[in-house]
Amino acid sequence: MVSRACRHGGAEYSGQVTQPIKDFYAVIPAGGIGSRLWPLSRADAPKFLHDLTGSGHSLLRDTWDRLEPLAGHDRIAVVTGRAHRAAVEEQLPGIPDFNVFLESEPRESAAAIGLAAAILHRRDPDVIIGSFSADHVIRGTRVFEFAVRDAVEVARQGYICTIGITPTEPAVGFGYIKQGEELVVDGAREASLVESFVEKPDLETARSYVADRSYLWNAGMFIAKASVLLEELAENEPELYAGLVELAEAWDDREQRGPAVDRIWPRLKKIAIDYAVAEPAAKRGRLAVVPGHFDWDDVGDFASLTKLINNGRKNDLAVLGPKARVLSDAASGILVSQTSRVISLIGVQDIVVVDTPDALLVTTVEHAQRVKGVVESLKLTGRGDVL
Amino acid sequence: MVSRACRHGGAEYSGQVTQPIKDFYAVIPAGGIGSRLWPLSRADAPKFLHDLTGSGHSLLRDTWDRLEPLAGHDRIAVVTGRAHRAAVEEQLPGIPDFNVFLESEPRESAAAIGLAAAILHRRDPDVIIGSFSADHVIRGTRVFEFAVRDAVEVARQGYICTIGITPTEPAVGFGYIKQGEELVVDGAREASLVESFVEKPDLETARSYVADRSYLWNAGMFIAKASVLLEELAENEPELYAGLVELAEAWDDREQRGPAVDRIWPRLKKIAIDYAVAEPAAKRGRLAVVPGHFDWDDVGDFASLTKLINNGRKNDLAVLGPKARVLSDAASGILVSQTSRVISLIGVQDIVVVDTPDALLVTTVEHAQRVKGVVESLKLTGRGDVL
Repeated sequence: MVSRACRHGGAEYSGQVTQPIKDFYAVIPAGGIGSRLWPLSRADAPKFLHDLTGSGHSLLRDTWDRLEPLAGHDRIAVVTGRAHRAAVEEQLPGIPDFNVFLESEPRESAAAIGLAAAILHRRDPDVIIGSFSADHVIRGTRVFEFAVRDAVEVARQGYICTIGITPTEPAVGFGYIKQGEELVVDGAREASLVESFVEKPDLETARSYVADRSYLWNAGMFIAKASVLLEELAENEPELYAGLVELAEAWDDREQRGPAVDRIWPRLKKIAIDYAVAEPAAKRGRLAVVPGHFDWDDVGDFASLTKLINNGRKNDLAVLGPKARVLSDAASGILVSQTSRVISLIGVQDIVVVDTPDALLVTTVEHAQRVKGVVESLKLTGRGDVL
Repeated sequence: MVSRACRHGGAEYSGQVTQPIKDFYAVIPAGGIGSRLWPLSRADAPKFLHDLTGSGHSLLRDTWDRLEPLAGHDRIAVVTGRAHRAAVEEQLPGIPDFNVFLESEPRESAAAIGLAAAILHRRDPDVIIGSFSADHVIRGTRVFEFAVRDAVEVARQGYICTIGITPTEPAVGFGYIKQGEELVVDGAREASLVESFVEKPDLETARSYVADRSYLWNAGMFIAKASVLLEELAENEPELYAGLVELAEAWDDREQRGPAVDRIWPRLKKIAIDYAVAEPAAKRGRLAVVPGHFDWDDVGDFASLTKLINNGRKNDLAVLGPKARVLSDAASGILVSQTSRVISLIGVQDIVVVDTPDALLVTTVEHAQRVKGVVESLKLTGRGDVL
């Protein structure tokens, strides 16, 4: 049991006062490019490799640092594309080779998380995995840790447990989770069954959700025994399940792994874990939720990034980019610069300017969602060199 | 009389049907940087060296091409800074050396035009000079030629004659000329005395000027016998006059010119020709005006440039820059690019984006006037490298 031995070693190594959680293994799917953050995010420089908070670290590294006290430094697996291997290892210099799960091409979250579950379950049938996006921003690490510890205790009882964020405003950019019957679980302060998942609402509906207090933001965090997650997958997506199990069997054999990935991975169904696992599990009363009382944002577009950096202050100009030389006069919004050019913004409100060596975006906070459409157009018009 | 001989040669050389105007010599002061067009216009790439109309030629070259049929190719003098000599000669490959008057530093329009008047008067006491800015845009060349020919006939009678543009809208960015008593001059279709000069008006006043029909835009064009212009200068600015005459006496002696410029030029008073010559002459009944019924713009800022390129159409995005790869969605205003970057503008109205290798400006048509303030700030904050 290599992983067990390493886990204890990890706790000593990191010098943490808090002990890593028993049986827990963190999984970080590091996949999406973040098209709505173009031209900052690119195919070869996806969102999770950027420092969007000014912390001095990439979002991936921040995610790792948050999870390391909970899992131990050698019990955090990263699922990412082959193309990002070098960048990921540069961001996470201590990551053991056996914790890097490389996809030959993107297959969405059910395949990515399912692969991790299948591999880790084969190594340790009792493992409890927790999946956390590589490119979300969280503030309030201690509160986050409490929520994860609670969720693991709920998962230990055989539930798939998500962490739902208590809303601070009627956001229309997130999906919501409606809490149902309360769950009493030893070692977990707060937990409920999930009554239902709700797609992104309109503003009026979002307002009613916030007023109702039983709705939480769906932050895409799932904590479950790997065995339970795989059972659910076998039930709902049997072909996907079979492919993942076959892959996992070959995985830890260096000679078999490569051919198995090439043979099996490209044929796996592209489906989000929400649809393949979470929603069916909710219908069967098998999905629980622990409320997370910390600040969370998926930083999905420049409007969200602006709000994050300006801490909600309007009329401020947020600047990301240490080399930019900025001169602004009556300007608000966000300026992201990857160059050392002199940039002058005059009399532009809620503006979004993203300055990179080969591409420039100028839009407004209001139109930030439309950036994805530009990326599609660039693909169609043969300008993929800047994507 | 080298210049006479060359003039006739010039008419043959250019193959023009229209003959150059007798005694006429065109003067092009090529001085101002055009700070409100930063970062397109720079100290080392002033406005007159740019193609702002998409004609494929610089404004200086366009100016030259307009004047060549009227003056002959070797009777057009350019007054410019020493630093711009090479650029000017590149733009005007046929310009004879004796028509390039180099300033050691900028001394404003009275010194620049006065120097040309003094030199050309010394070479030919009967010369009639016409001064035309190097960085204005004119459309309607034939109508322009009529106006200049009329103005020269008026000047031949001893008047200083300006060409005032018939207004097409209540512009607040230009000064106005109020026409007075009609002048009847052989060979000139329309001419009046100038009653007064009016500074840039507010919108209401501008509207009353346009309704009144006796007001014209001051386009800074002056046509006069060099002797008359110098007399007026001697009367109003005797020290400036004395310095210019001393300079002119040394000018055509290669050994004397350099030391004379270094000694005299830096001490000359900085004053606009409007104040040193035109306004005093108007008070003495010596200033005439011929109306110009052609399109004219001084392209003073990006608002003006936007209007010029969009031909007044709102909701269009004007693009200057052959190498830019532009993708716009619900954007209007102007994009000027000197790079080959992909530039995407989304949902920004009346925007001004100026993309250069080392500086980027984002503002709006409404705030275009404030660009000059940025240039001042850049000077003060030690970022003159991009000015």
